[in-house]
Amino acid sequence: MYHHIKKLMYTVNVGTPNVGFGNMLLEQFGGANGELAAAMQYTIQGWNCVDDLERRDLLLDIGTEELSHLEVVGALIRMHLKPLKENRQAAEADPLLRIAGGGGVALVNSVGNAWTGDYLKITGELDVDLRSNIASESRAKIVYERLINYTDDPGTIDTLQFLMTREVTHLKAFSAALESLEKSPFSIGRLAVTPVIVDEYFNGSTGDGDEGDTDMRGPWQTSFGLHPVESQMNGGKGLSIGAIDGIAGQEGRGKQDAGKKASTATHVDTVDPKPVPKTDAQQTGKQATTDDEMVSMGAQHGEGKPTRSERTTSGGGARKH
Amino acid sequence: MYHHIKKLMYTVNVGTPNVGFGNMLLEQFGGANGELAAAMQYTIQGWNCVDDLERRDLLLDIGTEELSHLEVVGALIRMHLKPLKENRQAAEADPLLRIAGGGGVALVNSVGNAWTGDYLKITGELDVDLRSNIASESRAKIVYERLINYTDDPGTIDTLQFLMTREVTHLKAFSAALESLEKSPFSIGRLAVTPVIVDEYFNGSTGDGDEGDTDMRGPWQTSFGLHPVESQMNGGKGLSIGAIDGIAGQEGRGKQDAGKKASTATHVDTVDPKPVPKTDAQQTGKQATTDDEMVSMGAQHGEGKPTRSERTTSGGGARKH
Amino acid sequence: MYHHIKKLMYTVNVGTPNVGFGNMLLEQFGGANGELAAAMQYTIQGWNCVDDLERRDLLLDIGTEELSHLEVVGALIRMHLKPLKENRQAAEADPLLRIAGGGGVALVNSVGNAWTGDYLKITGELDVDLRSNIASESRAKIVYERLINYTDDPGTIDTLQFLMTREVTHLKAFSAALESLEKSPFSIGRLAVTPVIVDEYFNGSTGDGDEGDTDMRGPWQTSFGLHPVESQMNGGKGLSIGAIDGIAGQEGRGKQDAGKKASTATHVDTVDPKPVPKTDAQQTGKQATTDDEMVSMGAQHGEGKPTRSERTTSGGGARKH
Amino acid sequence: MYHHIKKLMYTVNVGTPNVGFGNMLLEQFGGANGELAAAMQYTIQGWNCVDDLERRDLLLDIGTEELSHLEVVGALIRMHLKPLKENRQAAEADPLLRIAGGGGVALVNSVGNAWTGDYLKITGELDVDLRSNIASESRAKIVYERLINYTDDPGTIDTLQFLMTREVTHLKAFSAALESLEKSPFSIGRLAVTPVIVDEYFNGSTGDGDEGDTDMRGPWQTSFGLHPVESQMNGGKGLSIGAIDGIAGQEGRGKQDAGKKASTATHVDTVDPKPVPKTDAQQTGKQATTDDEMVSMGAQHGEGKPTRSERTTSGGGARKH
Amino acid sequence: MYHHIKKLMYTVNVGTPNVGFGNMLLEQFGGANGELAAAMQYTIQGWNCVDDLERRDLLLDIGTEELSHLEVVGALIRMHLKPLKENRQAAEADPLLRIAGGGGVALVNSVGNAWTGDYLKITGELDVDLRSNIASESRAKIVYERLINYTDDPGTIDTLQFLMTREVTHLKAFSAALESLEKSPFSIGRLAVTPVIVDEYFNGSTGDGDEGDTDMRGPWQTSFGLHPVESQMNGGKGLSIGAIDGIAGQEGRGKQDAGKKASTATHVDTVDPKPVPKTDAQQTGKQATTDDEMVSMGAQHGEGKPTRSERTTSGGGARKH
Amino acid sequence: MYHHIKKLMYTVNVGTPNVGFGNMLLEQFGGANGELAAAMQYTIQGWNCVDDLERRDLLLDIGTEELSHLEVVGALIRMHLKPLKENRQAAEADPLLRIAGGGGVALVNSVGNAWTGDYLKITGELDVDLRSNIASESRAKIVYERLINYTDDPGTIDTLQFLMTREVTHLKAFSAALESLEKSPFSIGRLAVTPVIVDEYFNGSTGDGDEGDTDMRGPWQTSFGLHPVESQMNGGKGLSIGAIDGIAGQEGRGKQDAGKKASTATHVDTVDPKPVPKTDAQQTGKQATTDDEMVSMGAQHGEGKPTRSERTTSGGGARKH
Repeated sequence: MYHHIKKLMYTVNVGTPNVGFGNMLLEQFGGANGELAAAMQYTIQGWNCVDDLERRDLLLDIGTEELSHLEVVGALIRMHLKPLKENRQAAEADPLLRIAGGGGVALVNSVGNAWTGDYLKITGELDVDLRSNIASESRAKIVYERLINYTDDPGTIDTLQFLMTREVTHLKAFSAALESLEKSPFSIGRLAVTPVIVDEYFNGSTGDGDEGDTDMRGPWQTSFGLHPVESQMNGGKGLSIGAIDGIAGQEGRGKQDAGKKASTATHVDTVDPKPVPKTDAQQTGKQATTDDEMVSMGAQHGEGKPTRSERTTSGGGARKH
Repeated sequence: MYHHIKKLMYTVNVGTPNVGFGNMLLEQFGGANGELAAAMQYTIQGWNCVDDLERRDLLLDIGTEELSHLEVVGALIRMHLKPLKENRQAAEADPLLRIAGGGGVALVNSVGNAWTGDYLKITGELDVDLRSNIASESRAKIVYERLINYTDDPGTIDTLQFLMTREVTHLKAFSAALESLEKSPFSIGRLAVTPVIVDEYFNGSTGDGDEGDTDMRGPWQTSFGLHPVESQMNGGKGLSIGAIDGIAGQEGRGKQDAGKKASTATHVDTVDPKPVPKTDAQQTGKQATTDDEMVSMGAQHGEGKPTRSERTTSGGGARKH
Repeated sequence: MYHHIKKLMYTVNVGTPNVGFGNMLLEQFGGANGELAAAMQYTIQGWNCVDDLERRDLLLDIGTEELSHLEVVGALIRMHLKPLKENRQAAEADPLLRIAGGGGVALVNSVGNAWTGDYLKITGELDVDLRSNIASESRAKIVYERLINYTDDPGTIDTLQFLMTREVTHLKAFSAALESLEKSPFSIGRLAVTPVIVDEYFNGSTGDGDEGDTDMRGPWQTSFGLHPVESQMNGGKGLSIGAIDGIAGQEGRGKQDAGKKASTATHVDTVDPKPVPKTDAQQTGKQATTDDEMVSMGAQHGEGKPTRSERTTSGGGARKH
Repeated sequence: MYHHIKKLMYTVNVGTPNVGFGNMLLEQFGGANGELAAAMQYTIQGWNCVDDLERRDLLLDIGTEELSHLEVVGALIRMHLKPLKENRQAAEADPLLRIAGGGGVALVNSVGNAWTGDYLKITGELDVDLRSNIASESRAKIVYERLINYTDDPGTIDTLQFLMTREVTHLKAFSAALESLEKSPFSIGRLAVTPVIVDEYFNGSTGDGDEGDTDMRGPWQTSFGLHPVESQMNGGKGLSIGAIDGIAGQEGRGKQDAGKKASTATHVDTVDPKPVPKTDAQQTGKQATTDDEMVSMGAQHGEGKPTRSERTTSGGGARKH
Repeated sequence: MYHHIKKLMYTVNVGTPNVGFGNMLLEQFGGANGELAAAMQYTIQGWNCVDDLERRDLLLDIGTEELSHLEVVGALIRMHLKPLKENRQAAEADPLLRIAGGGGVALVNSVGNAWTGDYLKITGELDVDLRSNIASESRAKIVYERLINYTDDPGTIDTLQFLMTREVTHLKAFSAALESLEKSPFSIGRLAVTPVIVDEYFNGSTGDGDEGDTDMRGPWQTSFGLHPVESQMNGGKGLSIGAIDGIAGQEGRGKQDAGKKASTATHVDTVDPKPVPKTDAQQTGKQATTDDEMVSMGAQHGEGKPTRSERTTSGGGARKH
Repeated sequence: MYHHIKKLMYTVNVGTPNVGFGNMLLEQFGGANGELAAAMQYTIQGWNCVDDLERRDLLLDIGTEELSHLEVVGALIRMHLKPLKENRQAAEADPLLRIAGGGGVALVNSVGNAWTGDYLKITGELDVDLRSNIASESRAKIVYERLINYTDDPGTIDTLQFLMTREVTHLKAFSAALESLEKSPFSIGRLAVTPVIVDEYFNGSTGDGDEGDTDMRGPWQTSFGLHPVESQMNGGKGLSIGAIDGIAGQEGRGKQDAGKKASTATHVDTVDPKPVPKTDAQQTGKQATTDDEMVSMGAQHGEGKPTRSERTTSGGGARKH
């Protein structure tokens, strides 16, 4: 249940209204990374999060605060749009707000596109949702920063500084909530990925470009066990396609993170099983080898030396895909 | 420049086509977290990333691979939709694909909504974009996992296992790229946030709910310097609004991360400065009510030493940011 | 500022979950006439309504209650969707919610279309907005009624009965607020309409149809001063086009309702006037042919029992057309 | 069947074309409250209205006239957009119309958003649709009024005055049609609302705001039987939730307006009944008491003493909420 | 599988960046007729075109080239948008690109609408798709031509000239592919149309308009067997409705083009047949009023010789319309 | 001006209503290639076509007929949807139409997506618009054909046969109108394309695929002057980029089709010219390297049997490539 107090969460003062800036601000009212998007994303995630009441509380705490922010940024916009009602030129530059909306704030972005639920990222998988929220808060922070750079009005700056600061508060809180799930950063859901191929960084873009760009090297090709693989189109051997083993039988399907804390909406086990042709032997065999491998890999990972495990994994002529 | 090789990146085999499952799969073709969304998001980020040619290469490597994935998942869907052309009942259940599209794959999601650019998250701020990509890959991973749970067709599972695995590859690469920027996890852009208020976790949702939920405590209220603050609506003192100091003058604006590596599209300094009326007095006056802390903080700001104030704010030497 | 209490405004109990019915219910969560649409429409109207603080309060009272309803209907849907997570068939019939959303509620309507701000009707003209709200509440009432007719689950029915009842409460409140503005039902804004032509009911559809339909007569052709006019295409004389006198000069523009209470966002008088070329003569000339007609039509008005203010407007020598 | 006569319903003359104003005008061509929206809303309502051939005729009369208006406003826009084809600056300010559309009118609103069926309000419930139409005509009237205030071109003003006037004509006709249904203004569909709770005006927004707003009182809290109820969040007792009785059995469901004239698409009775657990006795009993109560409640309403009926309704050991 | 080479297909040089022109150019990046629309339309058509591997190759050749064009036009736009990052005024005029996107290119059209799959025309019927592609290339050509007319920057013109030229290349290729199918230009799919009525040009718009327009005559009323028919609304006899014979039984359904080369996704024959009630008599009865002509036509149908009736229709004075 | 006659253009009889089929039919009511799309596309093209009153008449004749078709297909759908109002199961399968719309027809496609103006293709360039219309009619024809294949109801088939037939009528008329413009099939607008490069068919997709596809040859690589060119990525020499000469100065810009009949909205000549810096030297220099090549390519042209006008354009000493 919601209650509204007329007092704004932050008192808005605008010295010199600027309709153009009011339009820019709409990005944070009815835009893709704006306050309604944040409020709806976190709130609906929270309503769906029935298996983790602690983080549900977190999602609703912040979701509700974003509603209060929506009100604050709405008030700021209204004040900047004020001249719309009296100034002909301003109105001509802003026909949608003035003619259709009478000069007030509307649920649109800075160029008048109606807000859409397509902006939201809600998967019902808590750790995934928290990652989406971390990204959302980062986007909101940078947008407020850009807005601050386009105004000199002290009251406006203060309001935006308040809102920008709060996004970082939320960034911290979502990050802490994600960490507290104690999941590996690369473990999403329950199904294990295929060892060899997961570590192949595929070089899909090569050659020299017109702006000085060329085929570069960076830690993203060698961290966390990754190593680069050249495309067949560039004379390389391509990805180790043969390594894939999706495993048809339900029980045989690779699981990861047996002990992880976070609940998952995936529910691998509860889906009614269907009979699967006898591939168990082959599968078990393969899983077995993989199991050992994975253990050693975990160790290597811990030591921060991913490359060796990769060699181990991708090696061996035993696999016959 | 792009080149297409007719060989799929992963050879698709479907034993038993299932139109309903083909529809589900559309989520990864023309859906919000699907392969086209990924391809476009990374590729356009890469095209815009002219100041960091190394990570531009990364974005185009992966963006291009996602295009190849789009082709793979498209082939998988086509095979599952095959009965649409011959079976009346299947066609009635799937009118858009059959009647408008002739029975092939279309750029829609699992319920027939046309793909939209609104799915994309592109800010032109590299570290923010990388966070968005980490979230995108996490979503894609869980969606593939769910899909795998709804099929028993071995060839289909293998294909999905391949695609799911590659998402984790990308997750690793984007994470490594973000880490290599050597930015603080809570530092976005250049403008510093306001110290006191950034650490106040606001308790916007309270009381006891119908599903056992209540006002919980968790690390997200006490990590990274955070501490809980009760809302006025719940008898608390509310946020430290008075702490805000947006600082109207350009030079005075708090900067963070003077030495950070990542370029930013915000360009605080390059925006042509406009004279700002002497409002410092007024500002100071307004802030005055908010006590000593604020004054000293303003000073810290002026000195460009944000780290100390953060330590002060979060108190205690125990925390290790 | 908003605060959230975890207790639902109405406690939801579902005896037998029904995924199909859960989908239907989405119409009231993320659909065109659903609770979010209502909450946003009234709330934003309220935020914009700075000249009438009394009715602003009304709009925020009801806008906030609709947010609480959104939460209630969301809880109801979640409970009905529960089998989605365990039942394969249910999931196949509902791929978007299950595969992309994990089985929870999403901001979509009953067929999976994302909520859009295009659903909202906000003009910033208070009496118009109240009419839009009356229509909105009527639509919400009938949608809840239809939903009730598709369930036998007692707890579900109780919840829907609660929500349906509240829509009528709001319908009453908005109607009272509109009446309290003491405006004529046909007076919108400030500009007067052209007397003669406003009373011509134009018969644009004629002949006999295949379903027994024919050219009918009804009170809508003869009430409030109206009388039917046949189209030229049907051998009639058509509308009294010549009667129109838009009047180019600002002062000359017909005003209606000089004494009306409601504020208007139109602000006829404040727009900066521009010199208008002397076209009065030409205008007068054009009007001349229809002057007589207009007088006699004014008389017809009198017979149709127009309100006193209408007679004043259309008659009198004060106007200089 | 439609026929088109090349003669416009109103002859358009534009003295001085103004591209900016042409853009504004698009709001009434391809905008949310524009002529196509009106034409489609009324026409489709009319096509669906097979049980009331008289009002079907009304809907088609007006729906067809709106098509003729679409043509008129389209012609007006084309004339104002003329400089687009010759003037470079105008073209740069209007890229979509000039580059994609060649400089003519397009099915977009004033900021270039494509027209969407989401603008339409069609429920298939005649009295509800008429309320939606009354609101639509009110919106169209105020939009035309605003447009008139931004032009000094006599021919343009005349055209807009014509179109604005016709909206009021339609407003009258729809109002008359609604009145002729002889339904109570608060009776929508067939299902009765719950007596006690329907009259509780819930005070969801309280306190004092920054713009002078405070918790106000108005007739909307005391008219039509309403009386204010304070939220629990504000120390009040909240809504009389216990009063709700949705009644599971079909026959037992409260009906309103047994004798009302208007047909309804809800068809309570025709839905195939499903067996419902034995709550009939309890229900019938309660309905009985409610009947009497409702009479006395009307009285109580007048007196503003709702509490007794609430106690009665919510009391009784039979119901176990 | 796709590969990306960093070298652009055409090297882009911009002498004088022009943000306004950069916006215009977005029409060809994220607009309705832009390069992504082309790339997606042809590529997905190609992926679906499994029965004609030759033309599948064509579709993928060109679809891939359009991706390379997307990159070229994206680079051109980025260069024109450069001032966005440094110039305050430019940024205010372009809030979406600057504030949300950081100043880079985005997947939107010239007024900031997100790209949508609704732009695509994909039917899965090869000859129809080729016609759609011919139209698409024509639109793209004219849009590039218009763009060229709004710039004087030599490097920009060269780039646009390159892109414009390639559209005509594709126009030629698609035209050749359509011709090579050796289908009659008016033969789409397999079902024959009804002879008499197919040749009736219906005069739906008559009279004299305000811009000199009147009821004209042209070759479109008399070519390919066509002849004009006046509407009943204009005193004519209307279309020969009675001529229609849809033929309920599957075998009886008129086929055209028995020997045509192009495959079709329609698969008339493979749909599982359902028994059809003996309605032939009734049908004949209904048709009876429409005289001998109909009977003979039915006969022609039955014989599977549609060509003769066509010849009859288009030739000779025997027909009495 | 429009007039509506209640008589349908084709009398609709439905023997056995089928809700599923009613949904399919919506594709032609509110779908991408449906009757409203056709009506709006042709009608708005016609309104914009002020320089060619003959073809304007054509566009309005057919645009108006499509409105009548919209009514016919709407009536057909309504009859098929009838069981929605009485049958619970049908309603559950069709929640949007039943719950939000009351069971009538709505402006949506077969899966409930609202109609959007994004479906329309309107460029204001007559010959381009006619090509778009030819494609539109082809799509509509095939969609009706597919619909016919999914019904056995005689009355339904007759109605669809009528509508399908009329699409071919329009296809003929638009084709005749395009031919009567006497433009070369590859001449769009006024600007000439660059000779050499226009004839290079670029082989962007190569290799062998999994479904038997390989790099094919076809007339689309050798007709109309075309010849294949291999990509650099495949070891070829790539496109003759150097051949491009956009020509910065207005007068110098290549014109094609000096004598063509069709008007164009491009108006190359009327755009106000801006002085262009002397870049001719540089341009010539850049071109120099490719001059020889171009000559020989011009020769290739000749062998590829270009049309006479093309030879004229690409030849001649007037142009200085």
